[in-house]
This record gives sequence, structure tokens and C-alpha cells, in this order.
Amino acid sequence: MLSGGGLLATSIPSINVSAGVPGPDLSRFPFSLGIASYTCRKFSMEDTLKMTKRVGVSKICFKEYHLPLNATDELIASTVAKCKSEGIDLYSGGVIYMKTKEQVDGAFEYAKKAGMRMIIGVPNHELLSYTEKKVQDYNIKLAIHNHGPGDKLYPSAESAYVLIKNMDPGMGLCIDIGHTKRINRNPEQDLNDFFDRVIDIHIKDVTSNDAKGTCIEMGRGVIDIPSFLRTVVKKKYSGVLSLEYEIHADDPLPGMAESIGYTRGILSTL
Amino acid sequence: MLSGGGLLATSIPSINVSAGVPGPDLSRFPFSLGIASYTCRKFSMEDTLKMTKRVGVSKICFKEYHLPLNATDELIASTVAKCKSEGIDLYSGGVIYMKTKEQVDGAFEYAKKAGMRMIIGVPNHELLSYTEKKVQDYNIKLAIHNHGPGDKLYPSAESAYVLIKNMDPGMGLCIDIGHTKRINRNPEQDLNDFFDRVIDIHIKDVTSNDAKGTCIEMGRGVIDIPSFLRTVVKKKYSGVLSLEYEIHADDPLPGMAESIGYTRGILSTL
Repeated sequence: MLSGGGLLATSIPSINVSAGVPGPDLSRFPFSLGIASYTCRKFSMEDTLKMTKRVGVSKICFKEYHLPLNATDELIASTVAKCKSEGIDLYSGGVIYMKTKEQVDGAFEYAKKAGMRMIIGVPNHELLSYTEKKVQDYNIKLAIHNHGPGDKLYPSAESAYVLIKNMDPGMGLCIDIGHTKRINRNPEQDLNDFFDRVIDIHIKDVTSNDAKGTCIEMGRGVIDIPSFLRTVVKKKYSGVLSLEYEIHADDPLPGMAESIGYTRGILSTL
Repeated sequence: MLSGGGLLATSIPSINVSAGVPGPDLSRFPFSLGIASYTCRKFSMEDTLKMTKRVGVSKICFKEYHLPLNATDELIASTVAKCKSEGIDLYSGGVIYMKTKEQVDGAFEYAKKAGMRMIIGVPNHELLSYTEKKVQDYNIKLAIHNHGPGDKLYPSAESAYVLIKNMDPGMGLCIDIGHTKRINRNPEQDLNDFFDRVIDIHIKDVTSNDAKGTCIEMGRGVIDIPSFLRTVVKKKYSGVLSLEYEIHADDPLPGMAESIGYTRGILSTL
């Protein structure tokens, strides 16, 4: 069953990519690298897994392009089985918008069926208490994703933090370091100030520290990635750093590879 | 005119790759990054330049696949013009084997016509004095490339160094760090011991420190790349570090991007 929401491009490119081998051993760090599959939104679920493997990454957050929110139980099961057979851990889903109680209900049922431990989400403010109960009932965490200047709900990590800081510990943040930089804030500040709620991180780079900033290969933009990663290590962050590479949608693999390579290069010195 | 030497694959893959933007500013370093075009040996010259640009690199060493050694003056001129129009500096050619005086003559004429400042070469031992005279006559440097265990002529950088160390300063070395590692030697030792003759470097990673070692994405193999790059910086090396990525010949771009990204990540911390 394909998405009913018009999410799929009319023509899906395909990729014939050489098989990957495992990435470098990062087991000395408590965190892992992942891919946020929005990166591969024009490609099939199968090709998305291929590209993830090619860059030696084994954790993924599926956007609905790769597992529709209204997928049948059969499609969820076969998709989860495919991830497993490819050695990819489908640790989360998102970003999932939740504007109604029904959408919150649907998101948690979807995540539960897919075995996801976390939803990267954007619930309306008035649904936060309702969402907190779901987090407790399902034992699935919610990581609220900041979307930068212009976003009405969560322009900054702080705008989410102040609303959830006294809620269940399963209510957390997915810091998107690109959108943080776009409000002219250094991502390591988010880590330092809101660390008790940081449960997921989207890594990327952006071209400028304001609303005009757009995504670019990591290392080519304005974010001080070494400084950010030093803070990740210092704080002993133990979640996933998922690359969300938003440009070159028809051809994301080179930018994914460069960005993951750049991140590993820095980590190799820490 | 295509190569007469059977070098071109019977079917040349093509690539539809998004345009690149400039790479990160590395101008604080006296060296540059480049691509050794053996990496793209199954692709046309035009696609090779596209892939080089996509990874934000602007120096290239052409292997004969991309400019045949017996190319006409017209083909050389149009190829050089294409590089220039794409903003890529064709700084060298190679690896070029020279087993006869005629091949030495041909290599230097070829390099001169293409405006190359350097030949990455493998001259027979008995031709070294003859080659030295060419280096002086043409004001084009020769960088002898080591090829690891099993190579009869230059298994190690040392095997070339001992033969040229008292020759004209234009007689130098292209340290291939993969082949150095394959003789179980750390590449920074080559830099430290033979630095006065190191005029070019091929960067890569390999799977093991012996003859069985094969190429792999930088950071996934056994070479301590951070340690090597620290030495590059410390020695104030001012040439080119050209990536020679030898695997996935049908699909080299992801591995090129990952390797260049990895290198830049390390450099961003130095």
C-alpha cells in the first residue's frame, strides 16, 4: 500500500549502488550514526536501505515516504522484516506531525507496530498532555523536532523544552542542528542548556545562520561541527546522530557519503 | 581520439550528478586536495570532472583514460580547455609507466602540451638519468609512485628515494599511502624520512597492512589517517593530496565523497 497523502513523487528514481561494508568502529562512543530517511524521499524504501548501507550506517528513522502512516499491518511487517534482513535498525519514525488526537493515536499505533522506540514528532501544543499519556502507555518516546525561524510551533529547541521540561522523561527533544543554527544559535548551546531532554539529534550543515540558510554538505556550511561534536562527546550523549541531508533529492548519496565521512573524520580525532 | 591501448571499458557508464559547490575553505593549509582520475577510470573525462566538482575538489591528476598518452594536439587542447572552463586545475598526469626512452620522451611532451607541472611516473631504473635530464629541460617534475609488495621497480618510497636523493630536486616522490601501509609501514614515516623529495601524495585507505590489503573508503581501513594528516600539517607539506579510490569502479562517487569528507573532517580539527 502506498501513501495516500500524495507524498510519493510521480516518478521514483532508482539507484544501482554497490553494496556497502560496515562503517568504522565507533563503539568507543556511546552514540551511533543514523540516517533520517527524509534524505532519500524520492527513492524507494529498498533503495533507501541500500544507500544507508553503502555509507556504512545501520540506524534509520523512516519518514512516511518509506513506511506510510496509514500502512497496513502487512506492509509494516514486511518493511520491518526488510530492515532487519539488511541489518538496519529502524529505531524511529518521523518527522510526524500531530494536529489532532486521532493523529497522535495513529502515530503511536504505527510506531508500536513497527517496533520503533521513538517518534520524532511535532504535536500541536494543546496535544502535549495527551501525547504524554501515550508516551507512558506505549513506552515509546517522543522527540520534538525544532524547525527554525518561521515555524509557528517549535522554532527553537527552547520553545519545546519550556513546554515539556516538567513532563514525563519520555517527552524529549530531537535537536535539528541546522534549524538551530538558522535561529543564529550554536547547536552546542542546545546540548548544554537542554541536555536532560535531548533524546535524538538531526545532523546537517547550513549555508547561513539565519532564515535564508539552506542545507549543504556537512563541513561546507557555517556550523562549527567539530565544536558541536566535542560537546556531544563531552556530554556523553548516548542516542543517535541522524543525518538529514535535504538537498539534491534526486541524487542524495554523494552528499550523504560526504557528510557521514566528514562526521567520522572529526570523531576519529576525538 | 580515444586511447589505442585498450584502456577504455567496452561500455562507459554515465552519471547524472548534481552540480557541486566549492568545498570548504582549506586555504589556511599550504596543501590542496585533488582527485587521481584512476578513481573514475570507467567514466568519461567530462563525467570525471563532474564528480570532482561534486565533491568540491578543484585539482586533478589525469590518468590516460581521460587524456590518452597518444592524444592529438587538438584533443589535448580541448581537454585542457574543458578543465579550465570547469575550474579544475589539471596539475599532473599519471601514473605513467616509462620503460623506454621513447616513452620518457612521449610523457614529457604530453605533459608539456597539457600544461601539467608534474608527471606521476614509474620510469625503469636505467632510465632515471635520462628522465632527470628531461625534468631539467622541461621544468616538469617527476614524482615516482610506490606500488607496494610485489612491485619489482618501486615497492616502497624508500626504493625510489635511494635512487634519486642526489639527483635534481625535480626528481621526487608521490607517496601512495595505501601501498606504503601494504608494506606494513606507517605513511607518516615516509613523510618524516623522505620529506625533502615528497612532491605529491596519493591518499586512500586499505583493509590490511600487508600484500592482501585492498582499497576501502578512508576511515574504514587500517591507516591512522589522523596521525598521517597531523604529520602532513606539521611538515608544512605544500603539494596536493590526491584521492585515489580504487574500488567500486562502476560507482566511485559515494566512496570519493565519503573519503574526501573524512579527510576534511580531520583537517577541520587541526
